[in-house]
Order: sequence, then structure tokens, then C-alpha cells
Amino acid sequence: MTFASDNWAGAAPEILEAIARANDGAAPGYGGDELTKKVEARFCDIFEKDCRVFFVATGGAANGLALSVLSPPYGMILAHEQSHVQMDECAGPEFFTGGAKILPVAGFGGKLTPDAVSKALAGFPERPPHGAPASCLSLTQGTECGTVYSASELTALCATAHDAGLSVHLDGARFANAVAAIGAAPADLSWRAGIDVLCFGGTKNGCIAAEAVVFFDPAKAADFDFRRKRAGHLWSKMRFIAAQFDGYFENGLWLDLAAHANAMAKKLSAGLAAINGVKVSYPTEINEVFAVFPAGVAERLRDQGHIFYPWITPGDPAGGKMQRLICSFRTTDEDVASFVDLVKRG
Amino acid sequence: MTFASDNWAGAAPEILEAIARANDGAAPGYGGDELTKKVEARFCDIFEKDCRVFFVATGGAANGLALSVLSPPYGMILAHEQSHVQMDECAGPEFFTGGAKILPVAGFGGKLTPDAVSKALAGFPERPPHGAPASCLSLTQGTECGTVYSASELTALCATAHDAGLSVHLDGARFANAVAAIGAAPADLSWRAGIDVLCFGGTKNGCIAAEAVVFFDPAKAADFDFRRKRAGHLWSKMRFIAAQFDGYFENGLWLDLAAHANAMAKKLSAGLAAINGVKVSYPTEINEVFAVFPAGVAERLRDQGHIFYPWITPGDPAGGKMQRLICSFRTTDEDVASFVDLVKRG
Amino acid sequence: MTFASDNWAGAAPEILEAIARANDGAAPGYGGDELTKKVEARFCDIFEKDCRVFFVATGGAANGLALSVLSPPYGMILAHEQSHVQMDECAGPEFFTGGAKILPVAGFGGKLTPDAVSKALAGFPERPPHGAPASCLSLTQGTECGTVYSASELTALCATAHDAGLSVHLDGARFANAVAAIGAAPADLSWRAGIDVLCFGGTKNGCIAAEAVVFFDPAKAADFDFRRKRAGHLWSKMRFIAAQFDGYFENGLWLDLAAHANAMAKKLSAGLAAINGVKVSYPTEINEVFAVFPAGVAERLRDQGHIFYPWITPGDPAGGKMQRLICSFRTTDEDVASFVDLVKRG
Amino acid sequence: MTFASDNWAGAAPEILEAIARANDGAAPGYGGDELTKKVEARFCDIFEKDCRVFFVATGGAANGLALSVLSPPYGMILAHEQSHVQMDECAGPEFFTGGAKILPVAGFGGKLTPDAVSKALAGFPERPPHGAPASCLSLTQGTECGTVYSASELTALCATAHDAGLSVHLDGARFANAVAAIGAAPADLSWRAGIDVLCFGGTKNGCIAAEAVVFFDPAKAADFDFRRKRAGHLWSKMRFIAAQFDGYFENGLWLDLAAHANAMAKKLSAGLAAINGVKVSYPTEINEVFAVFPAGVAERLRDQGHIFYPWITPGDPAGGKMQRLICSFRTTDEDVASFVDLVKRG
Repeated sequence: MTFASDNWAGAAPEILEAIARANDGAAPGYGGDELTKKVEARFCDIFEKDCRVFFVATGGAANGLALSVLSPPYGMILAHEQSHVQMDECAGPEFFTGGAKILPVAGFGGKLTPDAVSKALAGFPERPPHGAPASCLSLTQGTECGTVYSASELTALCATAHDAGLSVHLDGARFANAVAAIGAAPADLSWRAGIDVLCFGGTKNGCIAAEAVVFFDPAKAADFDFRRKRAGHLWSKMRFIAAQFDGYFENGLWLDLAAHANAMAKKLSAGLAAINGVKVSYPTEINEVFAVFPAGVAERLRDQGHIFYPWITPGDPAGGKMQRLICSFRTTDEDVASFVDLVKRG
Repeated sequence: MTFASDNWAGAAPEILEAIARANDGAAPGYGGDELTKKVEARFCDIFEKDCRVFFVATGGAANGLALSVLSPPYGMILAHEQSHVQMDECAGPEFFTGGAKILPVAGFGGKLTPDAVSKALAGFPERPPHGAPASCLSLTQGTECGTVYSASELTALCATAHDAGLSVHLDGARFANAVAAIGAAPADLSWRAGIDVLCFGGTKNGCIAAEAVVFFDPAKAADFDFRRKRAGHLWSKMRFIAAQFDGYFENGLWLDLAAHANAMAKKLSAGLAAINGVKVSYPTEINEVFAVFPAGVAERLRDQGHIFYPWITPGDPAGGKMQRLICSFRTTDEDVASFVDLVKRG
Repeated sequence: MTFASDNWAGAAPEILEAIARANDGAAPGYGGDELTKKVEARFCDIFEKDCRVFFVATGGAANGLALSVLSPPYGMILAHEQSHVQMDECAGPEFFTGGAKILPVAGFGGKLTPDAVSKALAGFPERPPHGAPASCLSLTQGTECGTVYSASELTALCATAHDAGLSVHLDGARFANAVAAIGAAPADLSWRAGIDVLCFGGTKNGCIAAEAVVFFDPAKAADFDFRRKRAGHLWSKMRFIAAQFDGYFENGLWLDLAAHANAMAKKLSAGLAAINGVKVSYPTEINEVFAVFPAGVAERLRDQGHIFYPWITPGDPAGGKMQRLICSFRTTDEDVASFVDLVKRG
Repeated sequence: MTFASDNWAGAAPEILEAIARANDGAAPGYGGDELTKKVEARFCDIFEKDCRVFFVATGGAANGLALSVLSPPYGMILAHEQSHVQMDECAGPEFFTGGAKILPVAGFGGKLTPDAVSKALAGFPERPPHGAPASCLSLTQGTECGTVYSASELTALCATAHDAGLSVHLDGARFANAVAAIGAAPADLSWRAGIDVLCFGGTKNGCIAAEAVVFFDPAKAADFDFRRKRAGHLWSKMRFIAAQFDGYFENGLWLDLAAHANAMAKKLSAGLAAINGVKVSYPTEINEVFAVFPAGVAERLRDQGHIFYPWITPGDPAGGKMQRLICSFRTTDEDVASFVDLVKRG
């Protein structure tokens, strides 16, 4: 069994069908086609707002390009010390922004608090031009620890950021999982809470390679097109990203896939938590479970061919003993039950 | 009818089938899957050499990342003044390299000559550390003007570059068209001629988004993985680029598609050249035709809904009157005949 | 004798005296001192305009930082193919701008014309986001070939640039020489002609290390302070650059030094031009002479220990045979007479 | 009185004299002069090692350029969370390196420990190419908190770094103060301890603008010249930085100036520590004193025109109430006694 990552799961069949449907005849390149326009409009519907939407193929591209708009090259971006932008993009945000600094901030379960943000800012008093001026707060929803921010938590964080003159970026690689988990409107978890730019992920949740950078303030998007192009992230055959989102949104597929993955993780988490000697490290709110197993168990399971990663992070609350288990739209009840059983057997 | 660009053509059915085939069960992310390894090996077969192969989704990414390996951030890259890296990537190579300079060099039909390269270098005498040191020669095969370099032309250019201490990058967005046109072995048009790194394109020739950066000297690829990752060009579901190449190489599809597009362009070119008042600007050696039409004809055709772009470039030999017509794997004999007929009618 | 470069000449005594005077007691760092404020105001007087002035130590820093304000990282800067920013700053503008492209443009004697600029722009038609959008025209006054632009020539060039949406940067490493040569007001050779930002040089004309970036539109300077700081170009003991300019402007020293160097070059140029077999390549309008000597003469003079550089450039009108001779505030009538005599003797 | 910063103190008279001495006749530019060569050799003597030495004008330039050699653009640099490179260079290291990430690490009194470094590295497990690979450890000697590392502390830190594959950069803006304080050989506080590159400061200790980047492994310096040039940090009249170091080293001036500043700080620290209600925050080992004054005292002193800065930092042990007082070569016994007296009076 594999709980390695949601990106191991491949694509949902509906996504492949949507791609095939889109391959009908000639269509303008670089996003000038009808399907791209239709799907951009669909985003505006879903978010109940006129927004500017740009498609790219990876979450790292979406985050880096979005941050390059929100921070000058000499700016400072605050992000969770365990966030993807800090830990998993090989200094991508620094590259895309032309050298902005990331200030890592700690917080339990992958979540920042207004207080933690305020304290981090206080430690960097404004002394222009000596310190890099704080430009942006980057949040992740659902987080890298499998937790979510409520709409009111997001609102409070955005207020703290805006009061300090920062804009707010939301890494939504698992935004669908968060929406499905919370049951709130996408708008409530984004612009109504104060988010300026959302990187809306499709890849981890059943697409092949589809991410959207959503600007809730169109003025901020003025030069995004140039930035995307020079970074090699403008697809000539753009319709094939648009098609993925077309399929993703049809009949609520995106929320169904996410809800399934979430449910599997909840079940896995509950099953593990009930085992003597297992400690679940964070609340399981989306499709990720973090847990410490009794000594030797993880190794034995790996020896048997089961796949999941040890998870070591800055400020690791588990002293290097945590395991990460991710469920996807393809995870089955049976997978979960079998795995729980295996851990129980030790 | 559209002769706007080969990227309007969508995907060949075999490519979509290969993608669907690849979507079978879980597979490791980020290129750790079996299909990626199989296709990397296929590249080694095709090029008759152990090479390091990296997949990305766009030609701009392939070129920029390759150049970032071949040039230090303070280096100078020589490229044709009409090349894609100079004209069409929105300063992408400058971005990926961290600030390398491009020195544009002129030449008829999109082609550089050893003499032109030598003269350009002579105008930039080495005066370290004042001038940006020449680091790399970037060539395109087939060129942006629809022409090709013979193996011996490439060999002479690479020798000139290597003698001056430069490495050689080949933008092969239309490499398949060149191979099909020349009928030489891929190795003869790349490493045997002295090419160090080839950006091998699939997108324009029937793939969705599939390009490969091929390092013929594995040592040069040492840090490519980090560079690709930080630029957001490492796909988590890499198997879906690999799958495209899998389909692309099967039964020689890549050469069949290219040969067809080339044949259509030859026919179109011949048809146009025979019309009184039409001047074909460059030899039509691959799937691109450049031509000047009698006054008013292009405008009338566009008014009727036919799509093709005016083509204005530095050193424009046609004074801004050139039209570009590109054929693809989807272009039909009928398309060509009808279009020639329309031009003839004026 | 040396005619190698004006930077071989060291400092004018008045500059050293001004530095010593400034070393009196404690003073705030980073430009917060009174002398810096006084000298900034002096710039406003000299240019008859409220401007924002920033001191740095080198011309490369001044140019690079100024261009980083005038061009986005994906923009295109037009500059003469022999300009310092293109030839002599080791890809510095590309570094400071974060990857902007320089498009080299040809022109006799280091000078651009509105027609050449228009043609260069025409060869790069706007096709957003494919081509790097033209952002800035960079001119040099006095030029790298020892010539000057008249006020009306500058005005025409700036109009061409502004009409196309470009701002205009002036590399004034030898601005003093141009002002002294032309006898026009500094304002007439800068903002009244349409220049947006001037890099005003002191180093080549008797200072130790003193350059000023002068923004005629204060709004453009909004983030310059951050850019200068992060590039390591904000001096903590700023008063010592200010002091140099203080001495430089006192009693018109700057124009006296420049006028002397110009006069020496005129004399040298006239002397050489009168020699049989010598060809002066460009009009000698400031302190630089470019000439072709009879075969073997340059080599013999160098063997005797005289110092001057061969000058090879793109579009070299002399086929690699040109010599560059630069006069400074320290060059004497005798130096000139002796050198002319030596060339005459062959 | 001012205890604002050592950079308020201006230049030592011997430095100005050395500059004047160097202004004798013509000399090659860009470091080709005899004085530069002589002073480079002097560095080798002082450090008892053949090293490559490069002069620049600011500490930010020295640090940024040095780090650009020690880290690839996608690398991660570990530095103290209160270090100058992290807090005071406006994201300069990110700029010079082309986007490397800084990972801030905490430690009392501005000092890192092997344990803290190891823990920070452990929180960033190697998962190429996802995490930015740790490339370099940056230390400061004497630190931004007025403390010093002993030779054995440095040795242990360098061993930790080297064992993990990192090189070690030393920000020596106050290296003279550390050498004077510890009384060890410069070699013992640099390469013998394992330091790879030292940024040796002169500016804060009586020079005008003079810093040296010292490579103990010449191979690492291979492309420094290009990097310095493109960043606008290569002086054309280099002899005037060399001259400052010439004066700085003559008769041990550098250590005399530093020892004096250190002694004044020791006295100030002892005087303050003896006052009821004053808490000295860190050991005063060089020329910087950090202290918390009784409520209202700092404000009253500032109202009276005395100048010193409040000091707020990440991980601030004093809750935002700390004051920073810096002594320089110009600080007198009387200054110190008067100030202590003023604080005592409250």
C-alpha cells in the first residue's frame, strides 16, 4: 500500500476525458482559446467575484509567480517554518521574486496565529533601508500538517497582515480539501477573509498538472502575464490545462474527490489513534495523517513494501519519529482498514 | 483555415492514448516512476549515447534551464537575432541564468555561420572582468525561419564555438522536423556534431506539453535537478510527460508527424512560389513557410477568417511585409490546396 | 606616457582636501549627515530642478541601479552596441534589473539616432507576453567614442523613446566633459531634453569614487534606497562621497578639470590628424581620441613603455586597428606634444 | 554624546594620510597598480597564508559577493537570526547569490553553537531536489551582540559545518575588534579554525570605505572578479581602497584602534553594570554594549541630545527594552564617564 503522497495517485478518469474532449480541432495558443476563457469565467462563478485567473502546471510555479507579484525583490515574506514555500520548493520563491527573503515563523500544526505573525514582525522593526521590508504573509490552506484554518482564523490573520501593510498569499495546493472539510464557500476561505492571491491547486486532487493563480484584485495581476511567460510557465496548448479544470469543476468533481480523500484520512487517523502506542501528532482535518508509531513498526511496514514517508521538520514536535500518511481520491476503505490492521499487529 | 502555429493543432490521438495508458495505479512522483525511467532510456537509444534526460512542459523552460547550466550569471550567450531565445521568451534566458547577456547575431534564414560567430566574438575581445565572458552559443534546429542546418554546418559551428571556449545549446523545438527533413541520425544532428545540450521538443509536433533537456555530457547535468525544481518545472506526476514521449516515439510517430507537416509546408511553399507576385522569403525546409503576398492579399484573407501571422523581425529582409504560415501534423492536402488557390485568386 | 584611461589619473588635490575637511567629528551614517544633504541640494541648484540624488561609488553601480528602476526584470533596454552598459559592465545591468534584456543598436561614433532607435523597436513588434517589452533607452553623454550629443539631438532621441513608452537613462560617466564641451546648461543636456535619470560621474574626472544617480522625477526614486542598500552600495560613511562632490562643485572645479582634459584631447587629436598615415576615427569632442596609426607604430610605442589600449568593438569601423587615447585633468601640454612627436617619428 | 555606531566616527587621520600618499602620479586602474599588489601581499603576511584578496567598499558587498561564491542560487545559508546578513542587508545575500535562502538560527549573544547548527540542519533533511540544499554557514566575528567566538568555538562550528558539506563564511566587519579582544593570531581566528572566506572589515574601525574578501582557498576565488565587476564593486581607482588598508596595517594601527574602542566599551559596560536598575544584556567583549536602562532613562537621555539606538531583534531577550551603545576609535574616557554619570543620575 502507498500513503506516500496524493501525487502518486495519477489522474481521475473524468480529467482524462475532459482533456480528450478539448482536443477537437484547432484552437488558438497561449490561452486565447474559448475553453480557457470559459474556465476562467467558471473560477469567477465559484469565487463569486470578478477575478483574474492564470493557469500553470505546478504548485511551485503558482506560488513563486504569485509571490513575485506580491513582494519586491528586496522584500520579506513571512511563512510558516514548515510551509511548502519554505521547505519544499528549493528556494523557488527566492528565485521567482528575484531575491526576496523568507522569514520562517513557527506554529503548531502548520498554522500561524496573528500573535506569532505580530511577534515576528516586531522582531524586524522597520529601519529602512536596512532590513528587508515585510511585504507579504504566505499561508497554506489546508496546511502541510493536515490542518485547516477556519474562515475566522484566516480573517484574523489577513487583518494582522494588512494592518502591517502586507498582502496575503494563500498556497491552496489542497484548497479543495479545505473547502470540502470546512464546508464553507470558496469565497469565505479566500477573498472575503482577506486573501489577495490564491494558488488554487488541482494536481494533488486528481488532475495531471493544473494549478490556477487567482487574483482577487485584478490590478495586482497587471504584469503577471510577462512573469509567467519569462519563467517558461505559459503553455502554448493552454486548452489542456483549462480542460483539466473544466473536468474538475463539472458536477462538483473537485469537492467529491477531496471529500473522499479527507474521509479516508479521518478513518485512517481514527484507526491509528485507537492503537496502543500510536500517537497522532496533529488533528486530521484534511487528507493527511501524521503519527508516531511504536518503535520498529514503521520500519517493518516499509520492509514489507508499504510506502509512506518519515516526516522531519523544523520545530519537529516528535523528535524525528513522525510518519506522514496521505490519502487520495484513489485510497479505498480497504486500504485504510488493512493498513490500520498492519500497524495494530506491529 | 489556420496556418497560425503548430501549437494550434492540439494533440495527436496516440499521445492521448499513451497518457491514458500511463494512468494505471499509483506511481512514484517527481520522476521516480518506471515509465519515466523507461523513456529516459529510450532517449539514450535514439541518440545512441548515455545521456541525462530531464522532462519539462515548455520549450521556454527547457531553453532557459539548459542555458542556466551552460552560462554563469555574468556570461554572454550568442544567439541568432531572430531566435526564439532572443525574441520570444520574454527575457526568459536572462531570468533562468540569473542575468546572463544575450548577444544577437545576424544571419540569413535564421541561420548562423562560423564566420558570423567569429566576428561577433571578435567584437567582444576578452578583457576580464570588464566584458561579460562569452559562455555559450545557442543554435536552433530547425530554425525559426523554417530552414535547417546540415550535420556538417552544425559541426563547423560547434567547432568554432568550442575553439573559443563556448559550449553549444541547441533549441530543438522543431528537432523532429529537422531530423525528418534531413534524414540523418539524431546523433549526427546533435552530439556527433558537437552539441552539448539539446532541448528536444515534443509540444509543437503533437504532444500536449512535453520537452526534454538532453545532456550529452552527464557531468554538465549535475545540478539540473535543483534548477528545474526551484523554477517550478518539476512535475509531481511526471509520468504524464514521460507518457507523451512514450507515445511519441512508438512506431516512429514523432518522425511521421514531422514528415507530414514538412510535406504540407513544401507543397504550400511550392504552390505559393508559383503564383505571380508572391515571393517565398526563405527556403522551406521544415514545416514553416515565409512569404510576401501581393499587396492587399493577406488582409483580404484575414478578413475572410483565415489565420496566419505577419512576421516582423530584426533585420527583416522583407520590410515588414512577410507572412508566416505553419503546417502541423493536422494540416491536410486540401487545406494547402485551398489556401494556395485563395492566394492565387488574390 | 599614459593615455590609458582617465581613471589612471588619481584624484584632484581639491577632492582630497574636501575629504579631509569632512572628517570633522561624528556624523550620522548612511547619508543622514548634513554634508550629504547640502550636496544633494547643490545638485538641485546645478540642475535647476528639485531632484532626488543618490550617491554611489562606481559608474557600474549607478547605471545598474538606475536601470533596475527604469526596467522591469522582463523588460528590454535599448543601448548602443558599444556602450559601457553593454560592453564593459560584465552583464551588470542584467544583474541589477534581475534579468532585463539589452538590445544593442548600432550607430557611428557611439551615437544613436531616432531613426536607429525606431528601426530597432520596429524589429521587435509588441506581442505581449512573448517579446520582452521595451522599457528603456540608455544613452551615454559624452559617448564611449569621445563624441557628444547636442541638446537637440538628445531631445529628439528622448521624444522617440517617450513616444514608444520608454523612459530614458543617461550614462554620464563623462557628463562633465560633455557639459564643458558643449557649454550648455546641465539641465539642457538632461531633463529639459527629456532624460529621466542621469548617472552623473565624478570618478573619471578627478574624484576618488563618486557617482550620483539623479532622478528628475522624484516618484521614480521611490524604492531606490532599498535597491542601493541590498546591492551593498549604501556607504555607512556617506559623507565621504558627499565631500568629493562638495569639492568637485566648488568654484566650478568639475568643469575646469573636464575642460582641461577636453582641451588636451583636442590638441592630441589635431596633432595626430596632421600626421601622414594617421586616421582619427571619430570627431574628438571630449577627452577621448580614437585613431589608427601607421602599421607598427602603436606596437613600437608600447614597447617603449607608452600606455594606451587597442580598441576593438562590435561594428568596428577600423577592422581592429584602432587605438584609444584618453586625456585627464593631469595630462599636460607636454605629454601631448611629446606623444604626437613620437607618433610622427613612427 | 553619540554611541550610535562606529560608522559615525569618520576616518582615522592615518587613513587619510595614506590616501593622500597614494595619489602620486598615474597608476593602472581596477587593481592593476603596485599598491594594491603590495597590500594584497600584506594580507597574506598577516594571515600567514597565500590567499586571494579582493577589495570592496562596503561590508554588505563583501558578504553578498562572498556568499555568492559559497552558495549556488538554490542553496541554503545558515546564519544567526540576529546576524547582519539576515537583519541588516535588505536581502542583499539573496540578491548577490541569485536567490539563495537564509535559514535563521537562534543563539544567545549573537553566537551559534554546533548543537544549534546541527539541529537546524536536522530539521531540513536532505530530500533532493525538494529542499534547498544547505550550502554554507555564515558566522560573524565579533558578533552583532558584542561577543566573540574563541578559536576553539570557531573550530568546532567549522567542523560541524564541514562535516555536513557546508563551507564557512565569516563576516568580519569587526574582525579587528575580535582579534584585539582575544589576542589570538588572525590565522587562528580564520583559516586555522576552518573558515573558508573572511570578509575583513576596515570601515567600522577607522577607514572610509574599505573591506577585503579573503579567500583562504584560492580555487574558490576563480570567478570572484567577474562577480565583483558585474555588481559594480570593482573600483577603477582601486589604489584608494588599497591605500586605506596600507595605512590601517602600518604600525599595527588596526589593532590599536580596535583595542581602544574595545577598552572604552568595557569601561562603559562596567560603569553601567554597577548602576542600580541597569542590566547589561550580553558580555561586553568588543566595542558594543547592550543594556536595559531603568524606565524613562533612555528617553530622557535622548531628549537631551545623546544618541544611541534602541535594539529590537528576533528572539529579543529584553522584550524590546534594550539599548545599543557602540564605541569607536574616537570615543574618549571622558565620553564614557559622562555617559555613565548621566545614566546614574537617571
